[in-house]
Amino acid sequence: MTTTTFDFTPLLPAGLPPAAARWNGRVKYDFTGGNNDPDALPLEGLIAAADAVLRREGRTLSTYGMDSGPQGYRALREFLVGKLKRDAAIGCSADDILITSGSLQALDLVNHTLLARGDTVIIEEDCYQGSINRLLRMGVTPIGIPLDRDGLRIDALANVLADLKSKGIRPKYIYTIPTVQNPTATILPPERRTALLKLAAEYGVPLFEDDCYADLIWSGERPPALYAMSERSDVIYIGSFSKTIAPALRVGYIVAPWAIMSRMLALKTDAGSGALEQMVLAEYCTAHFAKHVPVLRKSLRAKLVTLMESLREHFGAAAEFDDPQGGIFLWVKLPDGVDALKLFPLAQAAGIAINPGPEWSVNKARAQSRLRLCFANLSHEEISQGVAALADVCRRAFGFPA
Amino acid sequence: MTTTTFDFTPLLPAGLPPAAARWNGRVKYDFTGGNNDPDALPLEGLIAAADAVLRREGRTLSTYGMDSGPQGYRALREFLVGKLKRDAAIGCSADDILITSGSLQALDLVNHTLLARGDTVIIEEDCYQGSINRLLRMGVTPIGIPLDRDGLRIDALANVLADLKSKGIRPKYIYTIPTVQNPTATILPPERRTALLKLAAEYGVPLFEDDCYADLIWSGERPPALYAMSERSDVIYIGSFSKTIAPALRVGYIVAPWAIMSRMLALKTDAGSGALEQMVLAEYCTAHFAKHVPVLRKSLRAKLVTLMESLREHFGAAAEFDDPQGGIFLWVKLPDGVDALKLFPLAQAAGIAINPGPEWSVNKARAQSRLRLCFANLSHEEISQGVAALADVCRRAFGFPA
Repeated sequence: MTTTTFDFTPLLPAGLPPAAARWNGRVKYDFTGGNNDPDALPLEGLIAAADAVLRREGRTLSTYGMDSGPQGYRALREFLVGKLKRDAAIGCSADDILITSGSLQALDLVNHTLLARGDTVIIEEDCYQGSINRLLRMGVTPIGIPLDRDGLRIDALANVLADLKSKGIRPKYIYTIPTVQNPTATILPPERRTALLKLAAEYGVPLFEDDCYADLIWSGERPPALYAMSERSDVIYIGSFSKTIAPALRVGYIVAPWAIMSRMLALKTDAGSGALEQMVLAEYCTAHFAKHVPVLRKSLRAKLVTLMESLREHFGAAAEFDDPQGGIFLWVKLPDGVDALKLFPLAQAAGIAINPGPEWSVNKARAQSRLRLCFANLSHEEISQGVAALADVCRRAFGFPA
Repeated sequence: MTTTTFDFTPLLPAGLPPAAARWNGRVKYDFTGGNNDPDALPLEGLIAAADAVLRREGRTLSTYGMDSGPQGYRALREFLVGKLKRDAAIGCSADDILITSGSLQALDLVNHTLLARGDTVIIEEDCYQGSINRLLRMGVTPIGIPLDRDGLRIDALANVLADLKSKGIRPKYIYTIPTVQNPTATILPPERRTALLKLAAEYGVPLFEDDCYADLIWSGERPPALYAMSERSDVIYIGSFSKTIAPALRVGYIVAPWAIMSRMLALKTDAGSGALEQMVLAEYCTAHFAKHVPVLRKSLRAKLVTLMESLREHFGAAAEFDDPQGGIFLWVKLPDGVDALKLFPLAQAAGIAINPGPEWSVNKARAQSRLRLCFANLSHEEISQGVAALADVCRRAFGFPA
């Protein structure tokens, strides 16, 4: 008997992304992705938390939203109220918080609540790839603002806002990662935050603050969040547990005024985010978050030092970078002759994964010879071996490092 | 100092759903939602599974996708391969399965891969509200096929397909819940499945099989899945752990040919579904699923009996229903004078939540005096008290039951 195979192709709508490739496992030296440090994962604490919270209230898993309703597990939101006050100077209540399936769902909810095809938004020129891609997929135009060592350049933003206004364009939001910016790791100083809020108010543009790396500043001290500094309820704030506890847990959150929260909530038609992860995080974090994060930071800082030393050893002057004050990635400039998009497949073939600069910027030309190297998930040995291997690949292809 | 509040309203795009209302807790007698039986939740088993799997491989939580890649935790997919073979006669491999954040994300992925505004699909006339709403929100026209006590009426489907073809319309899919249909709880017999597949092949329309209640048949025996019976790879199959383990875990799955799976995977930009839930389910289900489900069924069946007895006691002949062979809901017909949409707010005010028929049907007129009553989450006492209270509300408003 012959079996014919149904052809779905004629049924597909226009505008779908290309088909995904089969997954073939990870490469040996994976410097990509927001993966975290497995050794710093608080495993015993999470195991104890799972046991305690399941014994106490596990049967609530039989109900969508448990006893907490559609905004997510109440105890996790209560933890966040305290954490955001302590760390980011944010005053909010549990009712101002929506738990999401990672901050990626938060990005989607904000975007689908505010954006339509043809809209314009303002972002940092070098920017998280996932944010750029989401905008382009929605047919939204992101206007990039250049960064310097203190983050978003306010003078450039003022010019762009004035220019857009002269064209009759009101951007839907200004998206910023002001605290350990991705990929530059810059931290926007308080006076720039004040200036940013003032400009946003002047032009009637809300701010979209992505704060997912802010806990990972080596010093443990950070400027207040834009959300905390605003007096106009014009900031939508998102955060994540991916960078402080574990990315595979997929738990993020939005803090926003009810006027816009209620619209986002109407779009969250997933019957809630995963309850077990919320429960375990609430149980663990309420007791241990404040002690865990400094341990994680120390481990990450040590790996960053290994990465920077390895780059100096194997790339010498051919790799330029600033010493980041926090985070899990390094934004590296290679000599102008290096095309990161060409380096990418050559590195991949040698078992090394990198994020090519042009995928993390709306200024493709300026980012052409840049790389984003994530260091949290590799061991110290893998970092130094991986950098050495990358230097070999780069040298053979481009003549750098010498 | 005066604080002005930013007005987001002018920034909102057209077509957003209405703002969500603040959540005010659950009513006393909640007969809505696919909530499950808290007493039948295998809590000790889940606690032991969490401990075991976290101790063995908890550190993989530091990596997006763990060691399993974007299709979800490998051990859970391996469990499903065996379970689907055993229960539904489906032959597939772990590579044919995509783990999703509940079957709601599965619905979204299938819809966004196949549908565009203006498209037509075929569904069962009485149908899961979430499926109907998703289609309407996308600007897709659902054509309803009437059901009888054996589910989808093949003669009616043949007529609709012929009629659409004569108008030059090729429906994008036929969506069906063939095994414990929601809300009618009907089970499509094998010969109708064969006829359905034949018709689908004749008209070149793929099938979208939603199988999330199929484990809950009292007898434990079910017809083969359409996916299993098809010889043409023209069925997309979705399932869930919500109805067999716990809904708040938010774990579902899709089984589909790679040609269409690879397009859905490209749209799943959430960096994976929650890993802890997947890990705990895999660990628990591999050892205990086959023993747990009969215990759950027995508990559910007992609650259904209480519901039916309560309806007979308090509604008498005013409530008509068939005795379902499985599931967690009863589709009840009240006298024609009862308008379920008017009953809904009156019941709500009396602390009783119901699903009004018109929200679970594309034939609003026929469903006007129908209700969907979910029984898994309430205790036996709550079921009988809730039905008595509902009878009071109904009597005062409509004169039925007498």
